[in-house]
Amino acid sequence: MDKKLPEFEDVVSASNRISGLAVKTPLLKCEQLSDDLSAQIYVKAECLQRVGAFKFRGAYNRLSRLTDEEKKRGVVAYSSGNHAQGVALSAKLLGIYAVIVMPRDSPKLKLKNTRDYGAEVITYDRETESREEIADQISRDKGCIVVPSFEDFYIISGQGTVGLEAVKQAKEKDIELDLFMTPVGGGGLISGCSLAVKELSPSTEIYGVEPDGFNDVQRSLESGKIESNSNASGSICDAILTVHPEQMTYTIMSNNLTGILTVTDEEVLVAMKYVWEKLKLVVEPGASVAFAAILHGKINVKDKNVCVVLSGGNVDEGTFKKALDC
Amino acid sequence: MDKKLPEFEDVVSASNRISGLAVKTPLLKCEQLSDDLSAQIYVKAECLQRVGAFKFRGAYNRLSRLTDEEKKRGVVAYSSGNHAQGVALSAKLLGIYAVIVMPRDSPKLKLKNTRDYGAEVITYDRETESREEIADQISRDKGCIVVPSFEDFYIISGQGTVGLEAVKQAKEKDIELDLFMTPVGGGGLISGCSLAVKELSPSTEIYGVEPDGFNDVQRSLESGKIESNSNASGSICDAILTVHPEQMTYTIMSNNLTGILTVTDEEVLVAMKYVWEKLKLVVEPGASVAFAAILHGKINVKDKNVCVVLSGGNVDEGTFKKALDC
Repeated sequence: MDKKLPEFEDVVSASNRISGLAVKTPLLKCEQLSDDLSAQIYVKAECLQRVGAFKFRGAYNRLSRLTDEEKKRGVVAYSSGNHAQGVALSAKLLGIYAVIVMPRDSPKLKLKNTRDYGAEVITYDRETESREEIADQISRDKGCIVVPSFEDFYIISGQGTVGLEAVKQAKEKDIELDLFMTPVGGGGLISGCSLAVKELSPSTEIYGVEPDGFNDVQRSLESGKIESNSNASGSICDAILTVHPEQMTYTIMSNNLTGILTVTDEEVLVAMKYVWEKLKLVVEPGASVAFAAILHGKINVKDKNVCVVLSGGNVDEGTFKKALDC
Repeated sequence: MDKKLPEFEDVVSASNRISGLAVKTPLLKCEQLSDDLSAQIYVKAECLQRVGAFKFRGAYNRLSRLTDEEKKRGVVAYSSGNHAQGVALSAKLLGIYAVIVMPRDSPKLKLKNTRDYGAEVITYDRETESREEIADQISRDKGCIVVPSFEDFYIISGQGTVGLEAVKQAKEKDIELDLFMTPVGGGGLISGCSLAVKELSPSTEIYGVEPDGFNDVQRSLESGKIESNSNASGSICDAILTVHPEQMTYTIMSNNLTGILTVTDEEVLVAMKYVWEKLKLVVEPGASVAFAAILHGKINVKDKNVCVVLSGGNVDEGTFKKALDC
């Protein structure tokens, strides 16, 4: 049976739910890039969100909808690190026990922060173990509710509040967006955002961006069915190396997206340095792919009003130094 | 003859003048530091301002008040880099010719950006040459109007808009500030801000922060007369190594400040890394001193509502890597 898909009203409801808890992140103009490309380029700075990534929005929306009985059972989630932190902080705020299953090679910062928010962290090997199976086992053993990282009605609605805010902030500046772009992993962020963008600004084209070699969504939208990546690691974009989209995100993306672009790791590092130098923001690799696509001319933005989401900033020193060396 | 000092109304006038041109930078809560210190710590993120520092505010306010005849003559300014960029961009926006006198050892990024905004850059040696004399010579030779970096009615009023915005943003969040803190070089920022803070929130205590060994303002306020630093270089805080305050900033600071604190270069680097890791913002050394003072316990903030200005983010890769290595 097909799952019920969230709609615009569900994003509005999520927005009310997280109001006063999530940061209303600023929409910042990139002056020099706008000049250089004869466009108006704005970033939605979700790296300034709580836990350093947009994931807090969906996680809080999801956890706050649990029944009292479910809250007592606790939650289990699997995540490369940003959803982990989002769930951990939301659980802390709501007084819920949380176990998070994370890849052993997650950025140290993400592992540390998730533990610091009070969650129990269990690590696994990306190449040889299944995080879904580990989480299911914990769910069976402890009775915890599984909180998916993207394939969930309330998660998608929560992430959509990024798009809702961005379009409203643009309208406050009298800007009608021609393009809206976000990084794509499992598709939770762009699916949710697309519900808001298509409702409030129907003519806005929506593009997702994936790392080269991890273009499962690009291939899925082209073939008309869910396609998978052959590898689960091998790019610096740890946050968005999801193996394939799921039915809900695939369906919404099929309905609402104009296309998917890809960028290389090298292009991502250059983008991270550009954002550091020009925008004074810290972005992690996976959060930089959409900005990288614009910076490296993967899409024609001339004379267009563009909003690009910088979706997070949780990055280790070593990776950040690589970017600074570009 | 004493110069006329700016007042609250002049800050409001400056705010109107820069509206729509300067970024209304966000006031962001530091969640973890607030928890750790049992306080409410907010940063006013002026690193997100145009030119990457608050200096655009004062520079634009100053240049926009020039008469048409003065605009035709062009302007000359001296600066370690942030005022330089502020004047260069303001001149570009207003169609004014600009020459900027900058120390040869300014961060490369600041030299490059100032040139990129279209200004003519002349470099000098901090230890052996007088930037004032060079600027005066240019003024005599070319007829350019000298734009001081802080000792000016409109510059001080313009920088004060940081404080005006911050107090208003705090009030929008129902926060009455107990403490307001900024870095101090020549005192333009904190003087201007104090005019707004004292008017809108009279009970708020205002503290400035200087680098250890460059505490000319601290000593001036203690002795009751303008004191000088013995060195013009020797700290990583390039933006705030002003040799001494001037009459206007000294007088306003004497009237409005509760005190001045100092921090070491090492404490500054640790603060820069903290801001990178936790707040996902890029701050330069001199812009981090007030935050560093809080982070390192130089002032008791327990149970207090605190606003600290992160005044800029123009820093070279090498210095930033030093911070990441802390």
